[in-house]
Amino acid sequence: MKPSDYVTESTIARKIRFLSVINARLYPGKELLIELTELPKPPTNVEKWGIFELSLFGPSEGNPYQEVHLTARFQYKNRIVEPEGFYDGNGVYRIRFMPDEVGVWRYITSCSSPELDGRHGEFTCTEPSPSNHGPVRVKDGYHFAYEDGTAYMPFGTTCYHWTHHGDERNEELTLQTLEASPFNKVRMCLLPTRGMRPPRIVFAGTGPEDADRTRFNPAFFAHLEKRIADLGRLGIEADLILFHPYDKGEWGFDGMDRESDQYYLRYVIARLAAFRNVWWSLSNEYDFNKCKTVEDWDRLLQFVQRRDPYRHLRSIHNGTKMYESSPLYDFSKPWITHQSIQHWDPELTTEWRRANRKPVVIDEISYEGNSPRRWGNISGEEMTHRFWETMARGGYVTHGEAYIDPDKLAWISSGGTLRGESAERMAFLRRIMEEGPADWLQAAEDGDYYLNYFGRHQHAYCELSLPMGAEYAVEIIDAWKMTVTPLCGTFSGTSRVELPGKPYTALRIRKSGQAAGREERA
Amino acid sequence: MKPSDYVTESTIARKIRFLSVINARLYPGKELLIELTELPKPPTNVEKWGIFELSLFGPSEGNPYQEVHLTARFQYKNRIVEPEGFYDGNGVYRIRFMPDEVGVWRYITSCSSPELDGRHGEFTCTEPSPSNHGPVRVKDGYHFAYEDGTAYMPFGTTCYHWTHHGDERNEELTLQTLEASPFNKVRMCLLPTRGMRPPRIVFAGTGPEDADRTRFNPAFFAHLEKRIADLGRLGIEADLILFHPYDKGEWGFDGMDRESDQYYLRYVIARLAAFRNVWWSLSNEYDFNKCKTVEDWDRLLQFVQRRDPYRHLRSIHNGTKMYESSPLYDFSKPWITHQSIQHWDPELTTEWRRANRKPVVIDEISYEGNSPRRWGNISGEEMTHRFWETMARGGYVTHGEAYIDPDKLAWISSGGTLRGESAERMAFLRRIMEEGPADWLQAAEDGDYYLNYFGRHQHAYCELSLPMGAEYAVEIIDAWKMTVTPLCGTFSGTSRVELPGKPYTALRIRKSGQAAGREERA
Repeated sequence: MKPSDYVTESTIARKIRFLSVINARLYPGKELLIELTELPKPPTNVEKWGIFELSLFGPSEGNPYQEVHLTARFQYKNRIVEPEGFYDGNGVYRIRFMPDEVGVWRYITSCSSPELDGRHGEFTCTEPSPSNHGPVRVKDGYHFAYEDGTAYMPFGTTCYHWTHHGDERNEELTLQTLEASPFNKVRMCLLPTRGMRPPRIVFAGTGPEDADRTRFNPAFFAHLEKRIADLGRLGIEADLILFHPYDKGEWGFDGMDRESDQYYLRYVIARLAAFRNVWWSLSNEYDFNKCKTVEDWDRLLQFVQRRDPYRHLRSIHNGTKMYESSPLYDFSKPWITHQSIQHWDPELTTEWRRANRKPVVIDEISYEGNSPRRWGNISGEEMTHRFWETMARGGYVTHGEAYIDPDKLAWISSGGTLRGESAERMAFLRRIMEEGPADWLQAAEDGDYYLNYFGRHQHAYCELSLPMGAEYAVEIIDAWKMTVTPLCGTFSGTSRVELPGKPYTALRIRKSGQAAGREERA
Repeated sequence: MKPSDYVTESTIARKIRFLSVINARLYPGKELLIELTELPKPPTNVEKWGIFELSLFGPSEGNPYQEVHLTARFQYKNRIVEPEGFYDGNGVYRIRFMPDEVGVWRYITSCSSPELDGRHGEFTCTEPSPSNHGPVRVKDGYHFAYEDGTAYMPFGTTCYHWTHHGDERNEELTLQTLEASPFNKVRMCLLPTRGMRPPRIVFAGTGPEDADRTRFNPAFFAHLEKRIADLGRLGIEADLILFHPYDKGEWGFDGMDRESDQYYLRYVIARLAAFRNVWWSLSNEYDFNKCKTVEDWDRLLQFVQRRDPYRHLRSIHNGTKMYESSPLYDFSKPWITHQSIQHWDPELTTEWRRANRKPVVIDEISYEGNSPRRWGNISGEEMTHRFWETMARGGYVTHGEAYIDPDKLAWISSGGTLRGESAERMAFLRRIMEEGPADWLQAAEDGDYYLNYFGRHQHAYCELSLPMGAEYAVEIIDAWKMTVTPLCGTFSGTSRVELPGKPYTALRIRKSGQAAGREERA
C-alpha cells in the first residue's frame, strides 16, 4: 500500500455514513451492505499515553457485540497489559491500548472467532509530546498530579449532556467557551435522561421504544470519542458519569440487571479507557436511584476497577437524600480514588479529608443561576465564596451554571456560553492556587505558605502568628474583586495586619524569597 | 406612722450610702455604725406577677449570709409557695415573692433566728396592670408566650456586662438604645471576667485579691435589680447568665466547689426570682469550663429547678468546642425548658427541633462586626440572613454586635449604641413575624400561612403548590431592603410566581381574609 492509498479510519467512517444516507433514501427499510477492503494499518509509533489502535475485520453476523470476545496481550519487557477489544459495527473490530512505557511493545490477540485470534505485531512507544503529561493520579493523599509528576488541580465544571443534543454548533461553542475558561475537568453523562430524544444513544435504537440494550451504537461512541479527544487537546479531563437516576422508568437504563450493567461497562471501558483524560464517575446522585443498593454500587465500582487496565480515577457522586439519617458514600472503600461529593457546605471539607484521607472534590456545591430548583440558583458571589472556602480547607470544587433562558438549555445541561459571575473568579482562584504549593495545607504546616480565607467574616484586623526566624511577604486578596494587594515590608512572629473589614478577603503569606511559588521549584 | 413618715427602702439605702462615704472620708478604716429604726412596711396590695417584699431587721453579727436561714410560706387557698429570704446587709433581711393568683395571700416566716421567725401577715394580689403579662413560658412545644397567654417571640440581643462597668450614663444610653430597638430579651452576666475591675461584684470585695465568696455585696444586687426592673419596664426579658468560663483562674468563680456554687445560686434565686422577666442561663459556653463536667451542670440546673419557686425558663449555652466529636448539651433533659444554642449554621434549626422537641433559640449565631475574633465579624447582611433562615425553620435567634472602637467596648460587652445594619432588619423581621401566626410552621401545615425564605438562592421564579379550594394573597419580601410587595390577585393550587432573582427574598403567603394575621384572632 502506497502512502497515497492510506485510508484513515475517519475517512472510512464518513464514507459509510454517506452511503448509509443514500441507501436509506433509495431503499428505505433495506440494509446497506458494504464490503470494506481496507482498514487503517496500526501505527508503528505511538507516544506514551497516546492511543494505539488495532483495527481488524471479523464476523458481522448474529450479535457480534455479545458473541465475539476479543482481547489482546500487550507486552513491554516484563510488563503485560490485556485490554479488551470491541465491535465497532460493519464487521470492524478494534483494540485500543494506552502504552505507559517508552520502548517496543509487542502484542497478540486472543479471540473466540478464529479470524481475529493470534493476530500480532509490535509498535514503538515514543516520548510524549510536550502537552501530554499522562492520566491524572492521586498524589500526596489529598491531591492530584499527572502521571509524569506535573501538578494538576481540578477546576471542573459540569455540562451533563453537552454531547447528546445533536447540535454540533453548540458543541463547538462549548469547546470555545471551555478553552477560554479556567476549567480543566468536565463532568458529563453517557446515558440520556427521561424526555431527551438524542439523535444517538449508547445503545442501538434512538428512543425508549426501540432501544436495544444488547447492541451498542458505534456512531454514538465515535462522536463521544471525538469530544473526549477535543477536551484532551484543551487540557481538560472528561469526568464520565456512567449511570444516573434521571431515567424515571423511561429508558430503563437506571434499573438494568447485573449482566446488562456489566455488559455496558465492559464496552465503555474497551472503547474509552485508552483516552488518558478519562475519569470514571460510577453514578451521579446514586442515592436517588431506587433500583440499586450501595452493595450494587460497590460491586460495579469494583468491576470497573478490575476491568480498567489503566486505573483511571474512580468515584461515585451522591445526591442529597441521605444527609439527615445517613452519611455519604463511604469513600474510604479501597476502590474509590477520590471523594466526589455533593454538598452545599464547603466547611465540611476539613471533616471529609480527616474521615477518609482521600482528595475531596465537591463536584456539586449548588450551581450559580436563577433556576427555580434549590440546587440551581445561588449567586455568583456565594458560588465564589464556596470555591474559596473549599480550597482554603484543602479541597477542590466544581463549577456549574443554571441560568434559565427561554431559548436554550442551561450550561449544566448542554454547555454553550457562560453568563455568570463565578467562572472568572474561579480563573482568578486557579491562578492564585497554581502560584502556590501543590499541597498548600502541608506547606502551611511546614511554615512556608499560608492562604487564610476569611469568608463571610469582615475583620478590621487580624493577628498573625508566624514562625520566628523567617520573614514573610503578605498580600491581601479580594476574592470577589480579584485583586492582590501586597503589604509593605515583611512580617515575622506575632504581628497585626490591618484588613479592609469586608467579606471575601484572604491573606496570602509567603516566606520571603518564595514569592515565585511553584515556578521556583520547577 | 403617718404617711409623711413613710420612709421608702431606697431612701434608706441612699442615706446609708451617703453616710458611708462621709464616714470613710472622716474615719478611714473605721466602720460606720448605723442603727436603723424604720423599714418599709410590706405593701398591702401587689399586682399579679409583681413583687411582694417583706423587710425585717435581724442579726448582723457573724456572717448572716451563711448563718441565718430565712424562708416564708405564702398561701392562697390551697396553693403554697415557699421562697427563701436573703440578707441584704446592715441587719436587714428581705423576702421577695411573686404572686400568681389574684386574691388574699397570707404568709408566715420561718427562721433559724427567733426574731425573724413566725412573722406573719397578708396582702391582696390584684389584677395585673395592662403591660404586665407575667413571666414567659414555653408554649406549643417550640414557642413562647407570657403566662397570661399573650404572644411572646424572643428577639434578643447580648450585652454581657452592660451593668458592670460602673458607668451609669452608658447604662442609661443602653436602655435608650434598647427602647428604640426590636429587642425584647438581653443576655447578661452576673459574674465578672478576667481583667475586669468593676466597682462592685456579686461577692464582698472588689478585686480577685479581696473577693470573699462567703459574703455577697447587696449594693451589686441592688444595682442589678434596678436594671432588671428597667428592662422589665421596657418589656425586655433579662436572660441572666449565672456562670461563664472567662475567669481563667483570676477570680476563681468558674471553679468553685459544689457548696459555693449552690450558696451563690440560692442567694441569686432568693433575690432575683421574684422578677417576672428573669430567665436562667446556667452558663455561657459551658463546654469551655474545664473545672466542671456535664454532670456538674446537670446537677446545678436541677438545683435551680428545685429552688426557683416560679419555674423561670432554664437553659445552658454551649461554646463551639465540642462540635467535631460531641453533640451539643442534651437539651432533651427534663430540667431544660428551651435550647439555648451557639452555632453559626441556622439550617440546623430543623434538626434541633426534631431532636429535642423544645424551642430553639440560637443565642449566638456569630455577631455582626469587624472584630478580629472569628465569632465577631460577620456582615450585617449575613447576620440578617441568619435571622431569617432560623425563623423560617421555626427557631429564634439572638442579635449581637462586635464592632471594634478605640474609645469604647463593643455592644456585646457593655451595650451603649448600635452601629450595625442588622438590628433594623431584625425590627423588620419582628414586624413580619408578629403579623403572622404564633406557630408559623403549624400554620403552614394547616394551609393557613407560609413564610418561604429563599436565603442565598436567587430564583427567577418558583412554583407554588397551595391547597386547592382556598385563595391566597402573596407578597414578595426583600429581607435586606425591608420591603413587602403584594402580588396582584390571589393564588390557589399550583401556580408560578415570578421572583426578582436575587438573594434574601422571601414569600409571605396568607389565606385570603387572613391578611390581618394575629390581630384578627385576638
